[in-house]
Amino acid sequence: MKSLLLSLALGFIAFPLFADPLPSWQDTETKARIIAFVEDVTDPSSENYVIPADRIATFDNDGNLWAEKPVYFQLIFAIDRVSQLAAADPSIARSDALKAAAARDYEAVIKSGKEGLIEVMALSHTGLGTEDFIAAAKSWLDSAVHPQTGLRYRDMTYQPMVELLRYLRDEDFQTFIVSGGGIHFIRAYAEEAYGIPPQNVVGSQTVNRYDVVDGVPVIVKEPEIFFVDDKVGKPVGIDTHIGKRPIIASGNSDSDFQMLEYTAAGDGPRLGLLLHHTDAEREFAYDRDGHVGVLSLGLDEGPGRGWLVIDMARDWRRIYTAGP
Amino acid sequence: MKSLLLSLALGFIAFPLFADPLPSWQDTETKARIIAFVEDVTDPSSENYVIPADRIATFDNDGNLWAEKPVYFQLIFAIDRVSQLAAADPSIARSDALKAAAARDYEAVIKSGKEGLIEVMALSHTGLGTEDFIAAAKSWLDSAVHPQTGLRYRDMTYQPMVELLRYLRDEDFQTFIVSGGGIHFIRAYAEEAYGIPPQNVVGSQTVNRYDVVDGVPVIVKEPEIFFVDDKVGKPVGIDTHIGKRPIIASGNSDSDFQMLEYTAAGDGPRLGLLLHHTDAEREFAYDRDGHVGVLSLGLDEGPGRGWLVIDMARDWRRIYTAGP
Ligand SMILES: [Ca+2]
Ligand SMILES: [Ca+2]
Repeated sequence: MKSLLLSLALGFIAFPLFADPLPSWQDTETKARIIAFVEDVTDPSSENYVIPADRIATFDNDGNLWAEKPVYFQLIFAIDRVSQLAAADPSIARSDALKAAAARDYEAVIKSGKEGLIEVMALSHTGLGTEDFIAAAKSWLDSAVHPQTGLRYRDMTYQPMVELLRYLRDEDFQTFIVSGGGIHFIRAYAEEAYGIPPQNVVGSQTVNRYDVVDGVPVIVKEPEIFFVDDKVGKPVGIDTHIGKRPIIASGNSDSDFQMLEYTAAGDGPRLGLLLHHTDAEREFAYDRDGHVGVLSLGLDEGPGRGWLVIDMARDWRRIYTAGP
Repeated sequence: MKSLLLSLALGFIAFPLFADPLPSWQDTETKARIIAFVEDVTDPSSENYVIPADRIATFDNDGNLWAEKPVYFQLIFAIDRVSQLAAADPSIARSDALKAAAARDYEAVIKSGKEGLIEVMALSHTGLGTEDFIAAAKSWLDSAVHPQTGLRYRDMTYQPMVELLRYLRDEDFQTFIVSGGGIHFIRAYAEEAYGIPPQNVVGSQTVNRYDVVDGVPVIVKEPEIFFVDDKVGKPVGIDTHIGKRPIIASGNSDSDFQMLEYTAAGDGPRLGLLLHHTDAEREFAYDRDGHVGVLSLGLDEGPGRGWLVIDMARDWRRIYTAGP
């Protein structure tokens, strides 16, 4: 009841008798502003009404829908997969970076630099059909566990964001992932974890090639990079894949700056969301420094542009889908 | 009633009392087989039942959803647009091909060969934002008229295919265009003409670049080709954009061979459709010869692979959406 009364008092929620669509969010202004935006653009009597076909919402993935520390989970998958492949055929560990990956020495792989990381990504991510790759990723996601939380990586999705995605779809939004991560890796779990089907995942891509292997036509992943869906690539990926400017865009780092900028520039009301990792106790606290998920320009310019900064420690009642 | 009785007699239609979903199709075996397939995969008690999320149907566009003779309509748009741009600034007609386009001498442009066509496509299709490009295409489509039929190009969509798309969506299929044509050109009219929104259009692409022009973030189309969604490119485009193997694929030329091959190779029942242009009187008759829409391998191998050949003259009661 507290949340309903507060909402009434703030005057933001039009139908307070309905069930709370975002129970894992604290009753702060952040939640009220999100709900007020959604109610405004879905209200046929509002001057800001948006027809369902144009209710496009795009979400960054790493550090926005699930955690990304100490490094992107896709990189941990890559290292584990090299280790698995090397167990079957030790000769594939031809370089220091691949030897480190074969030994699951994560630190050493990361220290091997860009060239080493590319070797690990290429060996783990290419040379096989996309359906087989997705099966390998699914298998890893079903069992691999984060060393610090003890949770499976796939259970380190953020419950408040899962609720937000569901709430938006209930309000006839179409929800998309727009990620710098690999499109096929994300598809391995996005439908189950977020309710986002493969065709609503936009991501980075290897070159893919059509081939008929043993009589079966497949799409084979090649080592070359085809498209990097990051930074300026995100609005390009949105235009190519979706073909409409979103009315909501949500991210957590400066890699999302252009996506939010592109979204906010459309006509009518637009909602830009920046998730600020402020919760060292329940998750990880980071922003301007480091190698993963740097948020600096967004903190400097976002509020002035009307973007809403979500303060994880203050605004979220609960963090992980599988957690407390 | 004739169609209902015939359907009953053939025993193909489970619910003959419902309205005919394909009234512009003749009551031939072709129509019966299409309906039988759809009823089978949507029947929860069938062993071939497919859940709605996996009901993916992909359609080639030129010569399959609308006409493509004497040449692809997008090329006519390109020439008309060069002519329009040259009227405002004659200095842009720097080559013989561009001069021919400026004079709307279609024959001469086509005879200028590949290099000339690339010049015409580059000048007409690039150097502007995707939203402005789509606006230009919309404007052309609203008025441009086919010299032989006297119909607007946009009204030369095939009524039987529009009905098939609608029928499939009514049965919870997701319908996609997968075309060698340009993704943004098709998006200019696909939603209105076919009920297919931008995010369900897969097509060839130029390189696109994010830019902030006069303070407005836009996606600018560059002259380089980024992806050719044709032949072996179609299954790759499907994998990238949709991420699921279709259960229905529909095309009209050998450019669709790999799309149908890829589709047919999936588990369970699959429907491959090849539209054969057999109607010189009401449309155009062509198959093995020519430069546009060649269908030869498909006629040789399709029937043996179980693909259904639609005979336009025999199977279609009506051709154009705007026609008789
Ligand atoms: Ca991120
Ligand atoms: Ca075609």
